[in-house]
Amino acid sequence: MEGRKVVGWAARDVSGHLSPYSFTLRKTGPEDVALKVLYCGVDHTDLHQMRSEIMAINYPLVPGHEIVGEVVEVGSQVNKFKVGDKVGVGCIISSCGECWLCNSDSEQYCSQRILTTGGVHKDGTPTHGGFSSAMVVHHKFVVKIPEKLAPEQAAPLLCAGVTAYSPLKEFNNSDKAINAGILGLGGVGHLAVLIAKAMGHHVTVISSSEKKRGEALEHLHADSFLVSSNAADMERAAASLDYILDTVPAVHALDPYVSLLKVGGKLIFVGVVTKPLHFNTEDLLLGKKTLTGSFIGSIAETQETLDFWAEKNLSSMIEGDPGIAALYDKLLISEEHLPFGEKLRANNEETKRLVLQVAGHRDLLEGDPYLKQRLRLRDAYITTLNVCQAYTLKRIRDPDYHVKVGPNLSKEYMESRKSAAELAKLNPTSEYAPGLEDTLILTMKGIAGGMQNTG
Amino acid sequence: MEGRKVVGWAARDVSGHLSPYSFTLRKTGPEDVALKVLYCGVDHTDLHQMRSEIMAINYPLVPGHEIVGEVVEVGSQVNKFKVGDKVGVGCIISSCGECWLCNSDSEQYCSQRILTTGGVHKDGTPTHGGFSSAMVVHHKFVVKIPEKLAPEQAAPLLCAGVTAYSPLKEFNNSDKAINAGILGLGGVGHLAVLIAKAMGHHVTVISSSEKKRGEALEHLHADSFLVSSNAADMERAAASLDYILDTVPAVHALDPYVSLLKVGGKLIFVGVVTKPLHFNTEDLLLGKKTLTGSFIGSIAETQETLDFWAEKNLSSMIEGDPGIAALYDKLLISEEHLPFGEKLRANNEETKRLVLQVAGHRDLLEGDPYLKQRLRLRDAYITTLNVCQAYTLKRIRDPDYHVKVGPNLSKEYMESRKSAAELAKLNPTSEYAPGLEDTLILTMKGIAGGMQNTG
Repeated sequence: MEGRKVVGWAARDVSGHLSPYSFTLRKTGPEDVALKVLYCGVDHTDLHQMRSEIMAINYPLVPGHEIVGEVVEVGSQVNKFKVGDKVGVGCIISSCGECWLCNSDSEQYCSQRILTTGGVHKDGTPTHGGFSSAMVVHHKFVVKIPEKLAPEQAAPLLCAGVTAYSPLKEFNNSDKAINAGILGLGGVGHLAVLIAKAMGHHVTVISSSEKKRGEALEHLHADSFLVSSNAADMERAAASLDYILDTVPAVHALDPYVSLLKVGGKLIFVGVVTKPLHFNTEDLLLGKKTLTGSFIGSIAETQETLDFWAEKNLSSMIEGDPGIAALYDKLLISEEHLPFGEKLRANNEETKRLVLQVAGHRDLLEGDPYLKQRLRLRDAYITTLNVCQAYTLKRIRDPDYHVKVGPNLSKEYMESRKSAAELAKLNPTSEYAPGLEDTLILTMKGIAGGMQNTG
Repeated sequence: MEGRKVVGWAARDVSGHLSPYSFTLRKTGPEDVALKVLYCGVDHTDLHQMRSEIMAINYPLVPGHEIVGEVVEVGSQVNKFKVGDKVGVGCIISSCGECWLCNSDSEQYCSQRILTTGGVHKDGTPTHGGFSSAMVVHHKFVVKIPEKLAPEQAAPLLCAGVTAYSPLKEFNNSDKAINAGILGLGGVGHLAVLIAKAMGHHVTVISSSEKKRGEALEHLHADSFLVSSNAADMERAAASLDYILDTVPAVHALDPYVSLLKVGGKLIFVGVVTKPLHFNTEDLLLGKKTLTGSFIGSIAETQETLDFWAEKNLSSMIEGDPGIAALYDKLLISEEHLPFGEKLRANNEETKRLVLQVAGHRDLLEGDPYLKQRLRLRDAYITTLNVCQAYTLKRIRDPDYHVKVGPNLSKEYMESRKSAAELAKLNPTSEYAPGLEDTLILTMKGIAGGMQNTG
């Protein structure tokens, strides 16, 4: 696939709306790996980039930095990967390779690191991410997806997962019991709870309200839930935590959380806050406490994260939130499709059943109780979005097609009992560019698989 | 000396003025060490305490937490010390002894730690510090002064020294070259430069002005001097330092210093700032940088500091600053004596020569080139204060005595050629309480030996 044209979804301006975009990949060089994208997560950084909110973007921008793919070609000097391997690509695809950071598995901090999307290659061309049918990446920035790990599970681990894992790993295999705090239960927070639990830590989720108590304790099996506005509970928890992973990307007072730390405890920021935060030196001095930050993780740590996840049999999927699905619909789907999403969310159980068929997941599902369980857990939004995907595909094929929501669509697919692979090859004779439909599918799968975790 | 009455200098009210104060020591218990105070440093914390500026003080307060003494009695269960040993006592004299902090050589962070001065013993009585003729202290809070180390050298190490040493020791014996920054060249900063240099670090002193360039480079042998207001130099030094020890006890912007840190670098606070400081999470994230604090050091680290100091043949004394001496005169000396101080400072060389005799140091000086060098270095303020001490003693003896500054006093002592020990026993028939004169001497020696280092 050297120099081959591929199709992706690109943002064209600060509206951030995605539309199909054809571009050419570089030749697969001797140290490169070419991969077909299977899944790609989406997180808030993608949205920020699409709208030029955190850095100046040269449009068109193909987002996506939580990419799971299958190797289709390897360069002559690549021994680590072979065609057919399931692989992952995360937030960066290059660094200088020579500095002390690159030489100590800390290339994410290299001043010449190049971001997977919105970055600029050394030759001046823009980097394009995983909302695309294929990619060519230097092998050093590619990781292996462990066999035990379902590829779609891997996507959010490549950014949000390693962002949580990297700062937590120093507390892994500790010779003393570790009391962990996870502040904020968004994407990174959710994965952090699972990772910290798998490391054997006693995990307290800290949140500004009661809303996420159920999610924290029942779905994620955190050991404790602490509402930061409850002064009595905060007082009781004073000086009890070895670390707090602070995932809150907005201005917040730090004193209440610093007071929860034991002597020597660490407050670790993984979310950028655009305004300065305050602290009291006395708190740091008298408690030998630390404020620190961590930025994604190295490629080696990304591999560790995947291996850890597989080894510990973790699953990141949780019960979906139709509200989030609605939000993403609004952000990513053209206006004319929005009513479908609403209808689908209004009848969630039916939608779910429908979409499992539409997306060709039924065979997979029925043959794999583990996958079945995972799908059950992420029902609401995966279903909604997969239905949107199906309708979008249908519209691409047939501009005159008018959707009627009803049992027929379901029935059609239910009765077909076709394999997932067959269903994925939806339109061999499409008038659209090769890869467009694949791209649609994988992007939407990515959204479904990644967004709740990493948003 | 069980239950024996001793005399100290006490502050009686928020004016902070010291006056003689008699009190009773507790009996030397089975785990206690009783010591005669030989030297006691004075630092700004003493002044703050004397004036109730950082915590509510129950007057009378006997300050002093950099105490060097000689053991005069040991409890039945004390094996580590014997009568005649030179020992030190620092900032704390008790802790719970049972918590994980006490059990991991971090008792300075124990929530039940008791301060050497201004604290309250478990029995409810106030703690009295080293501006006193003697003390009784639990042996766990007593350290040995290495034989190689002159006792008066040890005083400032017991607070300021260990405050610098404790956070720096993690960078000792590093397998890579360490670039150190010392921000602020007050007492702790000065000792920190010497310690960091002795650890083999490349030391940059960072200051707000050019004023201390000479002190940093010539007297302390720092490798580099950086003025924080020089934007070009700051830019050149960006991302160059492994750590910065921040000794500035006033509000200051952190961004300029954070930018000097390498990836993974640490900004370590050892001075409390009473107002909140600001930082940008992005700096911490993208550079994996750390803001942290450190509070004095453990007793074990205090011992390490002394041993390190002796092993490395360090000397903390630097050229004195008559301005500092003037400040301390004003703070500690009654108004009527102030003009003497002024005159003495105006004629510094003569004063120094005089006082070396007055304080009985001549024999010592002439027999010990090392001490001679140290005394030479700290000339201005030691002389000023020792002369004040001498005049104060004279006044106590003879209320009708009126000082005449002239060569006579000098000559008298010069010609006496008495030993230091003889000169120290100035008034065996004094009408004042036993120990008062000793106390005066040691306090003033302590002020001379300690203040510039720790102020």
